[in-house]
Amino acid sequence: MRVRANISYNGQNFSGFQYQHDYRTVQGTIEKQLKRMHKTHTRLHGASRTDSGVHAIDQYIHFDTTIDLPRDKWQFILNRSMPDDIYIKKVDIVDDDFHSRFNAKGKTYRYKIYTGNKNPFYAGLKTHCMDTLNLEKIRGAAAPFVGVHDFTTFSSAKAEIKNKVREIKQLDIEETTDGIDIVITGTGFLYNMVRIIVAYLLEVGKGKREADTLNMLKAKDRTIIPKTAPAEGLYLEKVWYEDI
Amino acid sequence: MRVRANISYNGQNFSGFQYQHDYRTVQGTIEKQLKRMHKTHTRLHGASRTDSGVHAIDQYIHFDTTIDLPRDKWQFILNRSMPDDIYIKKVDIVDDDFHSRFNAKGKTYRYKIYTGNKNPFYAGLKTHCMDTLNLEKIRGAAAPFVGVHDFTTFSSAKAEIKNKVREIKQLDIEETTDGIDIVITGTGFLYNMVRIIVAYLLEVGKGKREADTLNMLKAKDRTIIPKTAPAEGLYLEKVWYEDI
Repeated sequence: MRVRANISYNGQNFSGFQYQHDYRTVQGTIEKQLKRMHKTHTRLHGASRTDSGVHAIDQYIHFDTTIDLPRDKWQFILNRSMPDDIYIKKVDIVDDDFHSRFNAKGKTYRYKIYTGNKNPFYAGLKTHCMDTLNLEKIRGAAAPFVGVHDFTTFSSAKAEIKNKVREIKQLDIEETTDGIDIVITGTGFLYNMVRIIVAYLLEVGKGKREADTLNMLKAKDRTIIPKTAPAEGLYLEKVWYEDI
Repeated sequence: MRVRANISYNGQNFSGFQYQHDYRTVQGTIEKQLKRMHKTHTRLHGASRTDSGVHAIDQYIHFDTTIDLPRDKWQFILNRSMPDDIYIKKVDIVDDDFHSRFNAKGKTYRYKIYTGNKNPFYAGLKTHCMDTLNLEKIRGAAAPFVGVHDFTTFSSAKAEIKNKVREIKQLDIEETTDGIDIVITGTGFLYNMVRIIVAYLLEVGKGKREADTLNMLKAKDRTIIPKTAPAEGLYLEKVWYEDI
């Protein structure tokens, strides 16, 4: 029987989603509880292997089980043993061919930035920006990302995948009470892609760089954008599937 | 020359305000920077020695210095070397007889509680309450605290101070979007006093205990309230002085 769960977590005290021996990870934390229940290692799969410090508002995971429980009971039992920084939002019993990662049709990421005085209660949760941001310039630089492009310039040089063509469906700049959220929906993302796009948009917004998005995409050269925005502002907001 | 600073900090990754060898504390973190500037140990004093995990929205500190800098420059230099979870809000040059702790006339503490589903982004910042709370009952139990009372029942048995008479000036229950804040102003507080009062008010709000505040105060017996609410919901909100 395959179980799917929607989960939310505060990434600031996790060394990322993926299991690592001797580090506190989201996968490791949940698998520990699954092992307690199953008396044997039960592997879980996530839609996205979020990096160290990155948060999730709505991540999907799945695992196979021989324990026959209704979904509410699963949710209750899992939450009871979770630490304060993970919450199991929903559990469903799904078809055996559902796969949280391979079936995902797209993802939405939100990047939270605040300006003005530093706020210690945002530490680990939002990225601070000292400068005032020019929203019009940011929106101008953001618009050309929408569509199908080669994202070599805007992804980590460490990524081993050869095909760096991805589609961005939507890229919105939302004003908040004390800053902006950059919200990006795409069919797939390369390693560090959102954080590199955000670093570029912030440089444009601060006036440290002129907007030149299409030419930068064409250049296919990671070295022209040397920065990566910090992990703390990044949230996996939604995973899109055909039927959910 | 004596320097006074208003500071704000997120207590979740500090082992409290007061210096402790081998632990990350607020005092230790700021003193480290003062030592770097003065080339010698410079002791700072705080208005309140908040416990491990307790936050401050507006704590006061002071220290003596031979470095002659204008207040804005002090603020800039201190903030430049502070971690993300401490912010220096304001600096003033004060009279040599000002003392952040001894001159304090009173303090306001805020305790943040949220109800409903667990929210991992409140971890370390607000206390979660599973049950719905009866505000009317909480307000009924809170009102009799205002005034001058012996707070033996509502303070840690570990407190060494003999005189446990204190005055509570105001105790408000404020509704928030997803819970309540309990806001207490008093001339002085005993060890764990706010957290024990909050634990009692929450038991009343959940219907687990009948409100009987005046008799409990009269009993002068710590064992009749065995609980202490967690540190994560507690904020030092304001320190009152005669002239500020």
